[in-house]
Amino acid sequence: MNGPSHRLVQVPRGVQCFVGDEALRRRAIEDLTTGVFQGWDYEEIIPPLFDYADVFSTPGLAAQTYSFLDRDGNLLALRPDFTSLLAKIAAGRLAHRAAPIRLFYSGEVLRYQPPRAGRHNELFQMGLEHLGGESMAADAEAVAVAVECLDALGVRDGVVALGHVAVFNALADAAGVDPAARGALRERVDAKDASGVADVLAGGAAAEAVRKALIGLTSLAGDVSILDRAAQTVRAVPAAVAAVAELRALVDGLAAAGLGRRIAVDLGDVRALDYYTGLVFRIFAPGLGFEVGSGGRYDGLLARFGRPLPAVGFMLGLDRIALLLERQGAAPAPALAAAEVVTSLAAACEKRRAGTRVRLTSGERTR
Amino acid sequence: MNGPSHRLVQVPRGVQCFVGDEALRRRAIEDLTTGVFQGWDYEEIIPPLFDYADVFSTPGLAAQTYSFLDRDGNLLALRPDFTSLLAKIAAGRLAHRAAPIRLFYSGEVLRYQPPRAGRHNELFQMGLEHLGGESMAADAEAVAVAVECLDALGVRDGVVALGHVAVFNALADAAGVDPAARGALRERVDAKDASGVADVLAGGAAAEAVRKALIGLTSLAGDVSILDRAAQTVRAVPAAVAAVAELRALVDGLAAAGLGRRIAVDLGDVRALDYYTGLVFRIFAPGLGFEVGSGGRYDGLLARFGRPLPAVGFMLGLDRIALLLERQGAAPAPALAAAEVVTSLAAACEKRRAGTRVRLTSGERTR
Repeated sequence: MNGPSHRLVQVPRGVQCFVGDEALRRRAIEDLTTGVFQGWDYEEIIPPLFDYADVFSTPGLAAQTYSFLDRDGNLLALRPDFTSLLAKIAAGRLAHRAAPIRLFYSGEVLRYQPPRAGRHNELFQMGLEHLGGESMAADAEAVAVAVECLDALGVRDGVVALGHVAVFNALADAAGVDPAARGALRERVDAKDASGVADVLAGGAAAEAVRKALIGLTSLAGDVSILDRAAQTVRAVPAAVAAVAELRALVDGLAAAGLGRRIAVDLGDVRALDYYTGLVFRIFAPGLGFEVGSGGRYDGLLARFGRPLPAVGFMLGLDRIALLLERQGAAPAPALAAAEVVTSLAAACEKRRAGTRVRLTSGERTR
Repeated sequence: MNGPSHRLVQVPRGVQCFVGDEALRRRAIEDLTTGVFQGWDYEEIIPPLFDYADVFSTPGLAAQTYSFLDRDGNLLALRPDFTSLLAKIAAGRLAHRAAPIRLFYSGEVLRYQPPRAGRHNELFQMGLEHLGGESMAADAEAVAVAVECLDALGVRDGVVALGHVAVFNALADAAGVDPAARGALRERVDAKDASGVADVLAGGAAAEAVRKALIGLTSLAGDVSILDRAAQTVRAVPAAVAAVAELRALVDGLAAAGLGRRIAVDLGDVRALDYYTGLVFRIFAPGLGFEVGSGGRYDGLLARFGRPLPAVGFMLGLDRIALLLERQGAAPAPALAAAEVVTSLAAACEKRRAGTRVRLTSGERTR
């Protein structure tokens, strides 16, 4: 062999590796976050790393899964997210448990992503799912837990931005656009491109009030006072009005619990409409141009696994939280005491019995 | 769809899932163990979940890896162990670090194993690697850390059984058996089958003293006094005598550090001769008929990755430790305080600010 081949030196694209202080900081973030989850009586679930590929065949995820054939000929897939797995487990293994069921997780997911700078295929997520129970209370609880996570982690000026899929959906229904135009419409709303939205609707049959409301969605993001304007903007479409009213009630409940300063609104958040069925939210903070976490209500998923239950959940990306805290200069300091240098095994064991960290250097030679 | 397909209900063979108290107990085991590793100044490494399949192509592991093609056409494999990954990282990413390097890990490995009751393909391992440095001191340290883990976990009557690959190898060399007979010999020694060993050697050219020594290996397991008998048994073969003397020095050092009651000897431990190059050990305790962990010296591995360094390490199987503690009635008790039931979000948030665990039941309806 002419020296090690490149595969014994380089790492595959998109995988991650952490050593020493970096690993300590990540463990600290994980402990703080899961401590908050436990504080709200969520139970940890450690699900399998892979399952039948069918489990993950929800829109958007299937194309991103790493799949492989078992030796029995089954198509398996590494988990690209936790929510599907938890839904399956809640419907199966936990079928005897009365709802509501509160579960949390922390671990790796694997997603194939087209090569792009800084994109990782191996992601670490921490999140919770609240399955069953009264939806408004569960939504409020999920957002409150997310807020507490931000505070516990020491995130400065973190914000949870709330939206509701029924606002866009009801307006798009009312506009009577065909499926292709609806996709384009959604994409322009997501880009907060008012004239683009107008272009998509131009020449269509949408009533003027509906047209204006859809264009208006592109600017309905900001503090919670936006909700007053939103109610006006969408007033022509009752289902959209109802969704805004639902958000209003949620915001009021959160404010009454003292969380108002952490809550914002974004009615143009239309990214995951195929999956979510009500509340959606994203978690932001200054220093990072993208969210550190997201969540929402998904009342349709558990029926796939044979146990129809309403559900809400969210996840925080550990990788993104670590990056955010670093940018904010707020990364949790590794809290290990310095190790005492000892020169014999007997001395090391004696120190250890007293709880001291040690570094044994007897006979150590570097080479 | 006529209800969910079986793949949406059943789980693939060999995967694991833990919920609630079971997950808590596993976290407690992980925290206790990694706390001991950190106590000896080992640094955590969180390596990738997969790498190029070549990385894992050491004897015995290649056949057990789950491999899959990347979209770039590379053959990747889910990690079947940590040691190869850590060796690669120590040789590559940590090339600038002076030896000795002390690393620990805790996480999942994936191994294809033929279907058999109770066998899992997804295993959780916690372990350490001591790379570089003076070998005798490093060996003693690794065993001492293993012993402290047993004590920290509350394992009753745990024992680390030491062996040395050079004992069997030197005797087999001296016996002059051909490769096929050597494999059979090793298998019979591993089975502690004295007459089987005699059968393999019958009619061969082995000197009587060597023949007797190889047969003797099958009964050289027990407390450390075995080493006196071993020195006698192998006295005809200098390299075997040297290996026994090395073990004697190690045992004396461990005894001087107060660890004598946790140390045993098994000179018939010949399972991983292709991989290990010196000390080997397995970790046992009453209640489980197989080891909960194992380790040894592997001075040949790092050269594969371009940085020849001597190395010693061991790992504990989290799954096996959990089973052992359960059988011994010593499983760490989940230490969470009971959650206080509250009926409004505002009350929940107030309790949380005081650090109380809460369960919010406002409006909860089971369904």
